[in-house]
Amino acid sequence: MQDAIPMVELWRGEFLESVHRGHAVVCDERGEIVEAWGDPQKIILPRSSCKMVQALPLVESGAADALGLTAEQLALSCASHNAAAIHTDRVALWLRDLGLSDDDFRCGPQSPGDMDARLAMVRAGEEPCQIHNNCSGKHSGFLSLNQHIRGGPEYIEADHPLQKMIRAAFEECTDETSPGYGIDGCSAPNFATSLHGLARAAARFASADGDDARSRAMRRLREAMMLHPELVAGEGRACTELMRAAKGKAAIKGGAEAMYVAILPEKRLGVALKIEDGTSRGSECAIASILVRLGVVEPDDPLVLKRRNAEIRNRNGIMTGYVHPAAGF
Amino acid sequence: MQDAIPMVELWRGEFLESVHRGHAVVCDERGEIVEAWGDPQKIILPRSSCKMVQALPLVESGAADALGLTAEQLALSCASHNAAAIHTDRVALWLRDLGLSDDDFRCGPQSPGDMDARLAMVRAGEEPCQIHNNCSGKHSGFLSLNQHIRGGPEYIEADHPLQKMIRAAFEECTDETSPGYGIDGCSAPNFATSLHGLARAAARFASADGDDARSRAMRRLREAMMLHPELVAGEGRACTELMRAAKGKAAIKGGAEAMYVAILPEKRLGVALKIEDGTSRGSECAIASILVRLGVVEPDDPLVLKRRNAEIRNRNGIMTGYVHPAAGF
Repeated sequence: MQDAIPMVELWRGEFLESVHRGHAVVCDERGEIVEAWGDPQKIILPRSSCKMVQALPLVESGAADALGLTAEQLALSCASHNAAAIHTDRVALWLRDLGLSDDDFRCGPQSPGDMDARLAMVRAGEEPCQIHNNCSGKHSGFLSLNQHIRGGPEYIEADHPLQKMIRAAFEECTDETSPGYGIDGCSAPNFATSLHGLARAAARFASADGDDARSRAMRRLREAMMLHPELVAGEGRACTELMRAAKGKAAIKGGAEAMYVAILPEKRLGVALKIEDGTSRGSECAIASILVRLGVVEPDDPLVLKRRNAEIRNRNGIMTGYVHPAAGF
Repeated sequence: MQDAIPMVELWRGEFLESVHRGHAVVCDERGEIVEAWGDPQKIILPRSSCKMVQALPLVESGAADALGLTAEQLALSCASHNAAAIHTDRVALWLRDLGLSDDDFRCGPQSPGDMDARLAMVRAGEEPCQIHNNCSGKHSGFLSLNQHIRGGPEYIEADHPLQKMIRAAFEECTDETSPGYGIDGCSAPNFATSLHGLARAAARFASADGDDARSRAMRRLREAMMLHPELVAGEGRACTELMRAAKGKAAIKGGAEAMYVAILPEKRLGVALKIEDGTSRGSECAIASILVRLGVVEPDDPLVLKRRNAEIRNRNGIMTGYVHPAAGF
């Protein structure tokens, strides 16, 4: 088992102040490792970085077509969104189309990540609902599939037919038997795998070119993400901005505790990344650095510089430090 | 140079999800290392963890007595406060007593950390001022000393007489020549030292029992912190709650990028801690663990459990994981 390696450094003046270590794997369409840092066999919980895998049964089952789901809705089903109006308006319509209400969600309420939405809610004296949960798009996808398979209302329980479908798809994509699961922030089970397994799943999404239901579902989901990057996260967020910088060359998804997945269709490669300490400052810099290395984003693109070579400014606007990739990474 | 060691683990279900590594030193009154983890010679920027050192010249110079500063004001001069009313009301009065205004601060504006204060400001459509900066107590101390020494208004510049006094005190307490400084979040210079040096400074505060100006100043500052823990940080904050748990046995101060200092007068020991990745989740658990180990807080005190064995609950209130000290730490 190899130790996590330094991937990201924070400098203040002439002093190295903090370091983020991590593990990462780049995998090809055969499922083989092309390049790895740290321990590729490290067992991780992908958290939201595997939402496109969790959305596979929605599409493969025919539920998405039966309900006439759009690319926007498929992007939302893979999203950890900001709960800006562009997200919650669409989720509200989706719920209405399903004939369901906020009470049918099982994700729990969450204050919007979007500052305008959050402040508007404070000014209006309103409390957040489940629709504002960053996972409400994924849960709308869950509710859609659940309606299609006529499952019971507790769709987040690990032995619910819907979660069994997701586990099966997850194990097939990672080509590993999951050693178990943790309960995610939105209460759904989140299945464990090795970092290699997660990169393998991403590579399958990247290289899916068959006419079988899975390949078609993978293409639809990755294309939906790249077509609507603002729906997958939100304005100012790393996923959204790095997808814009990649200009159709990458579908990118972050997860809690500093997880990242990147699907690179042109290169037929998949990337999985975990920063050991769980800090998004670290994972955003590290994934941007890997994307530069793989040639899918330009190092001098302002959307890339913002993550890979971020300036730290203090409360007077003075630049006091910067974040950048560690030497040798 | 020894590598940072795993100090804190985050578990989700049966999976180790994230790890925080760090360095720490416990130092005695002679300046010798009693116990250390990682690299005691690591060069660090103490950030706000050394505010009691930055406040020494205010007291030693006679400025505090000339202005009749209270223990509350001395606690605020060592504070990274929440900008709750208990903090900003006192800073506003202090400024008025000095005949100065918010414009005389050089710390920059910051939204209150205290949620009630922040939401009240949003509802009222108000913008934060410099008084709301978490360092406005320290800067009130700076302005007080500056008035006493008749210094120019740019009291945060490294060659200003006030900052030269602070550097001299800092180097004497750490018993090291500082290799330089970084610019802090509040624009003041923050002098670098080894972690051992910072622990040595803390041990000097802990064992100060002489009748000289420095010893008296150290006692006044550490006592002010322990007497008014709610002024040093704020309700719900780790510094405040761990000081309450220590019941007069420790003056504790955190700093940005996961720094911690603890002054233990009864034990005549000083502690300095740096979590490598800069995450407060890590530093709060690690300092609580060291304080338990040194016998100054009880492991089953709810205020200690909250940091050392923190439950992670999701948006439905389900316990999904926990944070605890790494094995062997």
